[in-house]
Amino acid sequence: MSKIPYKIYLEENEIPESWYNVRADMTAKPAPLIHPATLKPLKFEEMQPIFCDELIKQELDDTTAEIPIPEEILNFYKMYRPSPLVHAEYLEKELGTPAKIFYKFEGSNTSGSHKLNSAIAQAYYAKKQGLKGVTTETGAGQWGTALSMACAYFKLDCKVYMVKVSYEQKPFRREVMRTYGADVTPSPSMTTKIGRAINEAHPNTTGSLGCAISEAVEAATSKEGYRYVLGSVLNQVLLHQSIIGLETKKACEKYGIEPDIIIGCAGGGSNLGGLIAPFMREKLRGEKNYRIIAVEPASCPSFTRGKFVYDFCDTGKVCPMAKMYTLGHDFIPSANHAGGLRYHGMSSILSQLYHDKYIEAVAVEQTNVFEAAEIFARTEGILPAPESAHAIRAAMNEALKCKQTGEAKTIIFGLTGTGYFDMTAYEKFNDGTMTDYIPTDEDLAKGFASIPEVNL
Amino acid sequence: MSKIPYKIYLEENEIPESWYNVRADMTAKPAPLIHPATLKPLKFEEMQPIFCDELIKQELDDTTAEIPIPEEILNFYKMYRPSPLVHAEYLEKELGTPAKIFYKFEGSNTSGSHKLNSAIAQAYYAKKQGLKGVTTETGAGQWGTALSMACAYFKLDCKVYMVKVSYEQKPFRREVMRTYGADVTPSPSMTTKIGRAINEAHPNTTGSLGCAISEAVEAATSKEGYRYVLGSVLNQVLLHQSIIGLETKKACEKYGIEPDIIIGCAGGGSNLGGLIAPFMREKLRGEKNYRIIAVEPASCPSFTRGKFVYDFCDTGKVCPMAKMYTLGHDFIPSANHAGGLRYHGMSSILSQLYHDKYIEAVAVEQTNVFEAAEIFARTEGILPAPESAHAIRAAMNEALKCKQTGEAKTIIFGLTGTGYFDMTAYEKFNDGTMTDYIPTDEDLAKGFASIPEVNL
Repeated sequence: MSKIPYKIYLEENEIPESWYNVRADMTAKPAPLIHPATLKPLKFEEMQPIFCDELIKQELDDTTAEIPIPEEILNFYKMYRPSPLVHAEYLEKELGTPAKIFYKFEGSNTSGSHKLNSAIAQAYYAKKQGLKGVTTETGAGQWGTALSMACAYFKLDCKVYMVKVSYEQKPFRREVMRTYGADVTPSPSMTTKIGRAINEAHPNTTGSLGCAISEAVEAATSKEGYRYVLGSVLNQVLLHQSIIGLETKKACEKYGIEPDIIIGCAGGGSNLGGLIAPFMREKLRGEKNYRIIAVEPASCPSFTRGKFVYDFCDTGKVCPMAKMYTLGHDFIPSANHAGGLRYHGMSSILSQLYHDKYIEAVAVEQTNVFEAAEIFARTEGILPAPESAHAIRAAMNEALKCKQTGEAKTIIFGLTGTGYFDMTAYEKFNDGTMTDYIPTDEDLAKGFASIPEVNL
Repeated sequence: MSKIPYKIYLEENEIPESWYNVRADMTAKPAPLIHPATLKPLKFEEMQPIFCDELIKQELDDTTAEIPIPEEILNFYKMYRPSPLVHAEYLEKELGTPAKIFYKFEGSNTSGSHKLNSAIAQAYYAKKQGLKGVTTETGAGQWGTALSMACAYFKLDCKVYMVKVSYEQKPFRREVMRTYGADVTPSPSMTTKIGRAINEAHPNTTGSLGCAISEAVEAATSKEGYRYVLGSVLNQVLLHQSIIGLETKKACEKYGIEPDIIIGCAGGGSNLGGLIAPFMREKLRGEKNYRIIAVEPASCPSFTRGKFVYDFCDTGKVCPMAKMYTLGHDFIPSANHAGGLRYHGMSSILSQLYHDKYIEAVAVEQTNVFEAAEIFARTEGILPAPESAHAIRAAMNEALKCKQTGEAKTIIFGLTGTGYFDMTAYEKFNDGTMTDYIPTDEDLAKGFASIPEVNL
């Protein structure tokens, strides 16, 4: 076995050629999406007006373990993959821990995050189906940026509904998308029925993700040759993101790294689901017993304080219902700076795995997260996205436990992205004006009240 | 010889262990810095109050070819080096050119540019000398960011004087520096004599690089344990940046790539000087005859329209004089968005090489540069810094010439950094409101008038 370098880069020809579908190895499968009116599992035909055909197949397929990655997607992957697995030796030294810490860094691409892994797949299937374009919503902007890049590559039209407050406060994200040729509209807009209705009812609204989803779905279904695409939560997205875990596992095997603990931040679940996929396979088969930790913000604690029930995936209730850990689709998290973790629900796959105790979860507070981000930036030289910094915080906590016990555990965490477009959050932290907010039981009760009663 | 991968990563143990000092192989040496009062070459002792001792030695040494890189610096380099040499096959395809295009990408680190290569060296020598900290100025912010990261690593104090208009208009750059612990002061400030004097004389001034340099030098010389450091122009900086070229050359040799043309943008000259260093060695020795092209903005054409004479390095005339291609230290370039290329002068080393016809130069216009940037972003997936996009433009022009002639030339260019903090410029381009400006001969005459008469 060769000495482990600081940054492990697999060779280009070691990029995995299939995604791994963890549902194939789950005994208790994740519950299907259901139609809110009939409460029956959604059928292929019912999804067709909204989603691309091939992506629906992937969404519904819970038996095929290996799904080949089309060559066109592999060609794009090689532009920024394999991503490095980094041995955080500078951080270890700073903490004085006997633990071995590694992170899989997904931020070395212009979109700045792992979202590109699924964006390029979704754009490809849209192109293959002969569509003109796709529509989507974006909040913080990571997903919108990734989709813009993917659509530019396949010369597909890309319509992004960006929550109005982000559109105005994050003009730089908007301009990256425009540079990639995307049509970016602040939501609610006057270009859709639902947008006009919301603008009429609430003339000064700054928008919400729920509203932007509704507009994007309407735009996709009301125009010939368009479909709607989504950057997290769905099974298909976790499938595409398995590339993260597959590369990580290959790098571990190549250098004899045996992880004890695997950590990822969890908003909708795309990054964590992708990172852990092949490790979960071994755990589901009883071959290995990794500790797997989902990290969420204390301000939006879907796993640690939510309910495992059917709920709407969006505030606007235009999407189907999913069985998941949820805080209720009306739950409004406080203004946490990790925009990508402010989702009321969670991937159905991860929800089932958490329910079945294959995954643990911890909630961390914002200021504490930025303290970890600062230490990480100064020692490892990468300025992390606030979302990713949640995983850093949890990894540091585990490494500090090792320092107390003297155990040399091996910790791997997902560093999903960079924070270059999140400097407003860092400014608050640098100025000492960042606040923490943990919802009271009363706050949570309000969200729970919006969960529909579903008796199947 | 193995097939050339899309991204060539050297192994960690292939990082060069010495910098290469091109002056050692130059027959006509670059002219020395001179003292403005005596017009005599500056002596070691005269530089000591301002610069670190070891860096002065490097500045003055024009005979030692190989200067070993200290282990502490190599340890830092491995955090983000070797940087990839990328085969731009997507761009080639888009252009339909028979040319082979490669770029050395220096933007994969949090500072977002090649500046870190010299920042870490300068911080190291300051630390080794037992200093408390360093001072510097920054305009666009790339250098300030790099220095902040380097100082955080060695736990050195870092005082950055940031041109006031940038401080206010680029708050995100400022916050990255603060996250790395730097003390960032808008210039002119009330913390220095010269800053107070300027503020008194011009109460509404938005500052200038010349003024920020003056403040940084005053801050360094008036406080025990501080020295001033600079991110470009100086010989020492080109020495440190030779790491770019040395890696590039090693990668070329490993995969049998034989460049015909080597291209880099040139502001103060640090990136171009670094990229070409080992190739220039062969050219100076008559072993190879590469075409080497410096690319500058048409709005600030030091090489293509400047004079090769002694001039002040800074507007404030606090620094020594250098013999270089200059537009005059009072020349004020128009508001080009490539802040890093808005310097009136040029590295003495590159000036001498250009004068001796080892280097060609071209000037390109801003809008044309951003057109190239957009094509590059959409095909190669990297959003370039406006400075780097100058090199892209020139490389594309050469590749398009090859398309006409049918020649399959091999072109290498330096992609110095990413444009994530330059989205205001992209916004202007996206909106179609970007303008070009070429100085008239009259404009240039005003700048030339500020050049002192120096009769040695």
